[in-house]
This record gives sequence, C-alpha cells and structure tokens, in this order.
Amino acid sequence: MYQIGIDLGGTFIKAGVVDEQNKIVSKKMVESHVDADVEGLCTRMVQCAVDALTEAGVTMDEVGSIGVGVPGAVDAGRGVVVYCSNIGFRNTPLAGIISQKTGKPVYVQNDANVAAYGEVVAGAAKGYKDVIVVTLGTGVGGGIIIDGKIYSGFNSFGGELGHTVIVHDGEPCPCGRRGCLESYASATALIKQTRISMRNHTESRLWNICPDISKIDGKTAFDAMRAGSKAATEVVNQYINYLGCGLTNFINIFQPEILLIGGGISKEGETLLEPLRKILSVETYGSSMDAPKTKIGVCTLRNDAGTIGAANLHNLYESFITKG
Amino acid sequence: MYQIGIDLGGTFIKAGVVDEQNKIVSKKMVESHVDADVEGLCTRMVQCAVDALTEAGVTMDEVGSIGVGVPGAVDAGRGVVVYCSNIGFRNTPLAGIISQKTGKPVYVQNDANVAAYGEVVAGAAKGYKDVIVVTLGTGVGGGIIIDGKIYSGFNSFGGELGHTVIVHDGEPCPCGRRGCLESYASATALIKQTRISMRNHTESRLWNICPDISKIDGKTAFDAMRAGSKAATEVVNQYINYLGCGLTNFINIFQPEILLIGGGISKEGETLLEPLRKILSVETYGSSMDAPKTKIGVCTLRNDAGTIGAANLHNLYESFITKG
Repeated sequence: MYQIGIDLGGTFIKAGVVDEQNKIVSKKMVESHVDADVEGLCTRMVQCAVDALTEAGVTMDEVGSIGVGVPGAVDAGRGVVVYCSNIGFRNTPLAGIISQKTGKPVYVQNDANVAAYGEVVAGAAKGYKDVIVVTLGTGVGGGIIIDGKIYSGFNSFGGELGHTVIVHDGEPCPCGRRGCLESYASATALIKQTRISMRNHTESRLWNICPDISKIDGKTAFDAMRAGSKAATEVVNQYINYLGCGLTNFINIFQPEILLIGGGISKEGETLLEPLRKILSVETYGSSMDAPKTKIGVCTLRNDAGTIGAANLHNLYESFITKG
Repeated sequence: MYQIGIDLGGTFIKAGVVDEQNKIVSKKMVESHVDADVEGLCTRMVQCAVDALTEAGVTMDEVGSIGVGVPGAVDAGRGVVVYCSNIGFRNTPLAGIISQKTGKPVYVQNDANVAAYGEVVAGAAKGYKDVIVVTLGTGVGGGIIIDGKIYSGFNSFGGELGHTVIVHDGEPCPCGRRGCLESYASATALIKQTRISMRNHTESRLWNICPDISKIDGKTAFDAMRAGSKAATEVVNQYINYLGCGLTNFINIFQPEILLIGGGISKEGETLLEPLRKILSVETYGSSMDAPKTKIGVCTLRNDAGTIGAANLHNLYESFITKG
C-alpha cells in the first residue's frame, strides 16, 4: 500500500507517492495558481497526485490515503482549512473536496506541522515522542509534537514559536507585535543585520563575499565569518545569541527529547549547533542538575519532510471521510 | 471511595480526604521539618493523611489512592522525585516509599502541575482539555495541561513558563538568565517596582496605603491605584503590560482553550483580567481572524487546588505500584 503526500505552497503544488518504508517513489510539481478558485486549485492538486502515481506505475487502488500540508490554520480533526493568508481558503472543507474527487480518505494539516511530523516519522526526530521543530526561513516557524502527535491548540492557530517576544518593545514584526523571535532569528533578520553591518564596515571582507548588497542571503555572514571577517563574526554571534535565547525559552517550556532546527539557515549545521549547545548548556532550566537534557539537531529531510509528513497523517487522525 | 491528596511544601505538609464529588471532607496540616531524613518526612506525610482520615471518620479501606504534590521535578511515570531544591529528595522513589507504608497505590507529581490539574478537575478550567495555568507569586510558576493530561516534558523539568525571557538582557532572574518573565510579572517583581516608585514619588498616595516601605506587598500598588495614585497606576500598568507580553507568548505557542492566572496577584480579578484581555485581543496571533479565542480567567480553588489535584492523579497514571 502507498500513501500520497501533497505539499500545497503559494507558488507550487508538490505531490509524492510514498511507500511503506517512507521512501518517496515518485514526485511531481505544478504551479499552484493560487488566484484560481478553490475548486480549480483542488483539481490541480489531484491531477498532480495522479501524475505522480502514473510516473511511479502505481494505481489509485494501491493508495491508502492522501495527506495535504497547507500554509495556514487547519482544523485537522474536521479536515477544514480555517484560514490561509495567501490562498483563498476560509473554512474550506479541503479534505472533503479532495476525498470526493479521489474516493480516498484525506487528511489535512498545517505545512509547518506536517514537516515537523515528517522528521518524526522518517527524519532526524525518528523514535522521539516529544519534539520541537524551529524553522529558520523567511520567518521563524514552529512545529510541536507531543506524545508523537501534532499539537496546534484548540483552534489550530498554535505552534507560532516565531511570534513569541524575546525583546520587549523591540523590532517590529509582520505579526503586529514588537520584538518577536522572528524579527531576530529569521533568515530575513540575519540578512538585514548583514546589510547593516556592510554599510557600517565598508572595508569588511563581507564585501568580497557579496559585492552586491542587494544579493545578501542567509549564508553571506556565515561565509564571510569563515573567511575571517570580524564584522561578519559579530553579526553571526549576535544572531546565534538571540536564537539561543528563543530556543532556551522553548526548552524551559517543553523540555522535549529533541529540538530540531530547519529551514535555510540550518544548512550551517555544526557552525550553528555548536555555539547553540554552549548557550543551552548554561541557560536552560535544570541544566546544572543530574537529569537528561534535550538533544539539539538539524532537520534532515529538507523538502521531502512535507511530503512524507503529509503521507503519514493517516496515522494521527480518525478517517472521518471514508472511501466513497 | 475516597482519595487522599497530600501537598508537600517547604514549611507545611497538608493532607486532605477527597470524596467522589471532589469535595474535601477533611484536611490536616503539620510542619514539614524538611531537614529530617526522607524516611522521617514520609512518616510525617502518612501520619498527616491518617489524621485527616480519622477526622473524617473514613477508614484506610475506603481509600482508593494517595496523590502527592512535591515542589520539585518529578518523574510521575515512575513515581520518583528527581530533584527538589529545598527538600533533600534526589531520585527518591517517593511513591514506592509511601505505598509500602500504606498499602495503597501512590502517585507523585510536581506541585504546580498538580494545582493546575486540580483546576481542571474541579475548578475554573473544569471541562477544558488544553489549559495553561500561570501562577503569580514569589516566582512565576506554570502548569501545562494538554488533552486533559499534565505535560512536563521528557525529563519532568518542563512547564517553567516563568523562566522564558521577554526582555533580552533584562533584569537578572534567580534561575541565572536575564529578562525572564518571572523578573517582571511575579509578586516579587511588582513589590520591587512599587518600592522604586515610592522612593521616586515621596508625595504619592502609595505612602498612605503603605507607610512602611518594608511592608509593601502585591496588593499595595493595586490599592493605591484604586485610591487615585498616579504613580501606582503607572506601576500597575507597566506590570500588566509585561504580564500581557508573556501571556501572549504562551497563547501563540499553545492556543489553549483557557488560560488561568493563579497566585496572590490573581485575587485582583477583573482589575487584572480586563486590561489583560485588551492586550491579548490585539497581540495574539490570529486575533483578527474569525476563529475561537482563548478564554482568560483566574484560578478558583486557591489552596485546595493542590489537594484536589493530587487526589485525582490516579486518573492520569498507570498504577505501577499495586496494593501491597
């Protein structure tokens, strides 16, 4: 039996066929055209899944279920997308619509939660039951896994780890608050700090790494640090300091078995993890006591996390829509 | 059938006999003498429970189980107190010891978690499954209830909601970090801010409310505000502003059905809740969206929360120690 995992993004729909060993046997990608109506978007999602099946030489009869990750608030128990900022879903019974089109049980969840669950099922958090995933990308995303299950609060808006204030009255955040972790630890924040540093240090090696200030990315400061730039080292240290503050908060709250970092910045691996472990070993509650400590690592499934996580949603929820 | 709930504190042991309607039919209190050995302390706990039974006219045969709340980190699944700062418990199999003395199944948990669970069983959070309790006392304590069960992380050190930084590099906290919520939202912090304000405003009505600066308590600023003091109003507003920042963080993470405030400061009731609701209605993630919102309230069981919560621990855990 196979499962289909669909990752619905603002730009692309990705669908993958996943086998019983959680290996992706085929994947397809089409443009989302999010301006289309809900019906049209759902038809494209199903077509993308069918194309992936065809490529894998798998028939729909061999498919157990379809899981979908959506960039918004999802009531997974009812299969409804409550709200989605850049796609026109408002209380949309997405699971029902796709189930009707395919005759399969369909499960829907928020994409960050689905990706975190993917890491639990088949990635860096495999075998762990209490897991926190913090994604450092354009924003700072969060995924909370408790007792092996996705936790997102009673209204599905939970897990917004990036929107916790660590600097009272600090930098403005797109969410409307000031001083959120997202404003200090996202790739966007790192890029901003790198740009400020380059403007303040016209002699810095940062300019050798990235001569065009409009092309700074989340790697620029790390690369310049490795090339010996003092200014870049300061930017990276400050970035890690803020990130460590936020991660310590999450550990003091959850004491998960493992905390994973994902997103573009996580590609820095040990360059990021080593100083973070130092901060956490001093700052976290109970760190001086003789008790097991939260492990820290990076996500390993990258873009496949969403597909594998979605394909495994059937393990978490009751099939409220049975085969038609 | 009755259950016994024991609240072990640094100064007093309290034991109560709780009936099937979660009514406390009798309670007893003795001094803890925490400097005694573990064996002696356990004997006192059992004696206190037996005294409460005698007063209620209930025999040990009519008791289903004994629950104990302990001010420390507890591995509830094994009935072991991992660490307790002011009592000499270090990996102490407390449930086993008390079970041997009584022949009853015994359950142990952290006292803040037990009190939060008490509110869920019979207090202000009755009927709710995802609940956060924030206790504003000497420190800022936390209790996390997820799906009707106490959550404290894989190593039992979780739920330290007071030790999350909201002011990066802010006031020093007893935990070793700087800028923790506890340093801004505990009764201790409020008393400190009140004292500073009184020193800065020698003409303030605060001095009428509390002529002796060494006797300021968590009520002083609230009372002076009600008496029209501008300086006190500023202290209270700032206090609520910081508290609201922390509570918003917790809602963005957990989106619980209800968030309860406990501890001495919570006696202010609506004086505290009304401005907090205003902050949360603007600051929390998804607040502008058409979705159900977290309710805010105060704990109602006061000192009985620990007894009732402890008496109900048998609902949460497997009886790993059966009747002897």
